[in-house]
Amino acid sequence: MSKRSKLEAILGHCFVDSDLLDMALTHRSATQANNERLEFLGDAILGAEVAEFLYRQFPFAREGELSRMRSKIVRAESLASVARRLNLGDYLALGPGETKSGGHRRASILGDAVEALIGAVFLDGGSQTAKESVLRWFADELSVASLSEPVKDAKTQLQEWLQQRSKPLPHYQLVEVGGQAHQRVFTVSCRIDEVANDMSASASSRRKAEQLVAELLLEELGKMR
Amino acid sequence: MSKRSKLEAILGHCFVDSDLLDMALTHRSATQANNERLEFLGDAILGAEVAEFLYRQFPFAREGELSRMRSKIVRAESLASVARRLNLGDYLALGPGETKSGGHRRASILGDAVEALIGAVFLDGGSQTAKESVLRWFADELSVASLSEPVKDAKTQLQEWLQQRSKPLPHYQLVEVGGQAHQRVFTVSCRIDEVANDMSASASSRRKAEQLVAELLLEELGKMR
Repeated sequence: MSKRSKLEAILGHCFVDSDLLDMALTHRSATQANNERLEFLGDAILGAEVAEFLYRQFPFAREGELSRMRSKIVRAESLASVARRLNLGDYLALGPGETKSGGHRRASILGDAVEALIGAVFLDGGSQTAKESVLRWFADELSVASLSEPVKDAKTQLQEWLQQRSKPLPHYQLVEVGGQAHQRVFTVSCRIDEVANDMSASASSRRKAEQLVAELLLEELGKMR
Repeated sequence: MSKRSKLEAILGHCFVDSDLLDMALTHRSATQANNERLEFLGDAILGAEVAEFLYRQFPFAREGELSRMRSKIVRAESLASVARRLNLGDYLALGPGETKSGGHRRASILGDAVEALIGAVFLDGGSQTAKESVLRWFADELSVASLSEPVKDAKTQLQEWLQQRSKPLPHYQLVEVGGQAHQRVFTVSCRIDEVANDMSASASSRRKAEQLVAELLLEELGKMR
């Protein structure tokens, strides 16, 4: 397997126009036909793809939270991590000075190359290919964003969702208490206008049952989106 | 024609999910289900579309020039101009305070609504529809960018293109001087490795003929991209 094929296998994209791949990996210290223009393009495409991902992934997050999450994902440090996972350092073309001073490992050079590669994949394979590459290359960063979002409990999320749309708040009703005295089972039911059926759930406490039924309702709302 | 149909005609997009259109036009002063999230998404999409347009439109511009042009196109002032052309002020939903204080004409509110609309069109009609909307709504801003770029003559552009790729410089050869003494016609020919055929052009001066032949070569290079 040639060195290039190996890289293309890691990237998950085989370039039709291999000049684009070369250019994306060429630092400005090497030659004038370098990756600065592609970096400009790729940076913008990355921003849009991450914005779309977060918008869809976090239907309850406010604009400020979305912005904060995106900044984390596209900051220089994250870009450099992605570059290291893609092993880009081995493929960079640098000028003699940068090569000598360890430019292959410099975070800023690595990060710029990732952005340039996104631009190159976009031009070579179109917007869908670019989107898929971003989601694959940044999978770790995107899943960390999901984890680090302040997790709101289901009842709060449901209440906010309804308030944002000026809908009446949900009314949770305790419909049954069963089980033995030392092992009670509480069943709570709830209904909102947006979901056709009454939902109910059972748990070892009323509070837990309410959370469960709120989760069920959020799931139903999620299906409708 | 209903007020909404009129707006959709101006926008050039008929919404499948009219809730998205409503949300895009709703300022945060009006209700919690406002356009802030859509603005986050639309801002990123606008940035990427403009970056792609400039990248393709100016194959000889450097990254810094592209960035400067984009900043001009997406700055608040330009967004507000677009909003005024689309007549968005008439359709905004604002809280009572903002309505009273003339929020319908405020540049920042108008600009935010344009970005939110881009997000809404993207979610409603997909990325191609969003791209076409941006190019149509921002046609004036995009063409001003073209005009304001420092225009380099064809010979300079060709020389830079070749230098950036470490190729030999073009050699212009005067191949014929014809016409009458007071109305000479100069024919210049030029050949570069990247274009299969020799190109030649004639004009009333040698300098003009050289520019023409450089233009022909740039055209050929443009076709290959």
